[in-house]
Amino acid sequence: MNEFSLIERFFADPAAHEPPPPWLRLGIGDDAALLAEEPGWETAITCDTLVEGRHFLPGTDPEALGWKALAVNLSDLAAMGAVPTGFLLSLTLPEADEAWLAAFARGLFACARSHGARLVGGDTTRGPRALTITALGRVPAGKAVLRSGARAGDDLWVSGQPGRAALGLAVRLGELASTLPEAERWVAALDRPEPRLALGQRLRGLAHAMLDVSDGLLGDLRHILERSAPPPLTAEIEVARLPLAPLVAGGGPPERARTALLAGGDDYELIFTAAPAYRDQILRLAGELDLPLSRIGRLVPATAHPIVLVEPDGRRTLPEVLGYDHFHACQERR
Amino acid sequence: MNEFSLIERFFADPAAHEPPPPWLRLGIGDDAALLAEEPGWETAITCDTLVEGRHFLPGTDPEALGWKALAVNLSDLAAMGAVPTGFLLSLTLPEADEAWLAAFARGLFACARSHGARLVGGDTTRGPRALTITALGRVPAGKAVLRSGARAGDDLWVSGQPGRAALGLAVRLGELASTLPEAERWVAALDRPEPRLALGQRLRGLAHAMLDVSDGLLGDLRHILERSAPPPLTAEIEVARLPLAPLVAGGGPPERARTALLAGGDDYELIFTAAPAYRDQILRLAGELDLPLSRIGRLVPATAHPIVLVEPDGRRTLPEVLGYDHFHACQERR
Repeated sequence: MNEFSLIERFFADPAAHEPPPPWLRLGIGDDAALLAEEPGWETAITCDTLVEGRHFLPGTDPEALGWKALAVNLSDLAAMGAVPTGFLLSLTLPEADEAWLAAFARGLFACARSHGARLVGGDTTRGPRALTITALGRVPAGKAVLRSGARAGDDLWVSGQPGRAALGLAVRLGELASTLPEAERWVAALDRPEPRLALGQRLRGLAHAMLDVSDGLLGDLRHILERSAPPPLTAEIEVARLPLAPLVAGGGPPERARTALLAGGDDYELIFTAAPAYRDQILRLAGELDLPLSRIGRLVPATAHPIVLVEPDGRRTLPEVLGYDHFHACQERR
Repeated sequence: MNEFSLIERFFADPAAHEPPPPWLRLGIGDDAALLAEEPGWETAITCDTLVEGRHFLPGTDPEALGWKALAVNLSDLAAMGAVPTGFLLSLTLPEADEAWLAAFARGLFACARSHGARLVGGDTTRGPRALTITALGRVPAGKAVLRSGARAGDDLWVSGQPGRAALGLAVRLGELASTLPEAERWVAALDRPEPRLALGQRLRGLAHAMLDVSDGLLGDLRHILERSAPPPLTAEIEVARLPLAPLVAGGGPPERARTALLAGGDDYELIFTAAPAYRDQILRLAGELDLPLSRIGRLVPATAHPIVLVEPDGRRTLPEVLGYDHFHACQERR
């Protein structure tokens, strides 16, 4: 099977027989795809690479990988408040394994259909297994929620249940028992993250700053602090408000669960900041979307440390761990 | 050095201190870049992956690689008639080698500045050396030159000097002497291809179909034939019109030069078809752009074979070799 028949066979978009969306002028098959431009909109664009042995283990279920590869990119669009449109897939494989490709494509297109994204182009090549997805979305001009808009006095929020993916990885690595009550759910969070697109879109006009948690809550939170305009900010996290209880109730050892929540990567939940005046509105949104939204702290004018944990007994501590650095595959204080 | 300082240090766009172009609303540093949309335009988008050991040899000069990685993507934009805007770089490296990164970035940004493309996002990760670039361009709505517009009676044209890159590879591999008169120029064609952007843009409204030659002239020509609307077409190539003489004059053995011209990859010249009425206009364009344009044949209603070579003595032959298939690393008749 040659490169071109591979693409035709496995990556013919299952939505190709439906009428093309109005933004799609030309899809797969030419030198480039063509997307219509419309006044009053901006295109959001992002790319992420997943490398075998680094972002996923050899032997990872290809269907889960197909889902996740797209989901992590859609999560970046969610964090801007954008609506997904198209995506490009660049796939590098050691061999043209038909069963692997079929399963990968199944997972990829399941995620694509679930979130309204359409494959518009890409590349396949031979080499060590890796894949890069470039995802495109649209957002009304000027309405994207940036990392840079945080202000002193803002509440700090996080969606869903960060920490599950890290515990799922521990289950997969045999470090935690697969018989724990929530073990299966944690593994699902690792394998099949849900990009928080509806939340991101609904937070346009409410959130001052937003990003998605790919490398760990504390580490990613730093990016909001670093990019907010002067004067600089410190984040105070109230430990008692962290959604830790569900992880512990699910069988997570408390210390490990806390570390997973604060520093585990791969959850793809959204962190956002908003004025306290919007608390009720945000909680109503949580109900409408059936997605927990936890107010975990607040932003204050900068103190000596960018992030401070306020323990339940009132002690103020500094975080031990911050996040995941792909060039130093360990968790370390930076 | 961690991932983030890598990006900041080597991939801070040297154009960042200039006023941003009007289409760029938000560049590197957030979850996604934001590009303005304008009525009457379409966004062209394409991506290509280069893998070490497959698309470039281990030990390849990183500066040349940086240039080429972007150039091959801009070439796809050229083949649509698009004007480059931004690009995203996803870079996978076995280690954070500062000297390598500095040279790679130098080549990359030299190409970017030379062709007006701006780095707007990307990803760096650790793994086997590979890189994916996603390039964006703009083209007036409805004016892109597709692969699918070829018609019977069209002339078939090619830009520049296809075959040089394949001979350059032979020089690099020691199969041809580096003392041949044009050896250095061939290697330069391999290392530092020039995307034919000005030509592509000027051919809007003139060319019926266009693509760039990445895998070999004959193999890529097939894509025009395959995608042209029914009735099907055959390409008749007049061997006497091929720009073979300069390759031979430069020291290329005639048979090898012919194979390089017809089936060698990596030249990134443009193939296009146009009505015979435009011959003079196209030749004037060649003069204006100081770029040879060779009329190498024509398209006719389909015969038994998609591509026929008309030899100088009038014999009609079938091509021996068609192009490069990344999943079968050899040249073969498909």
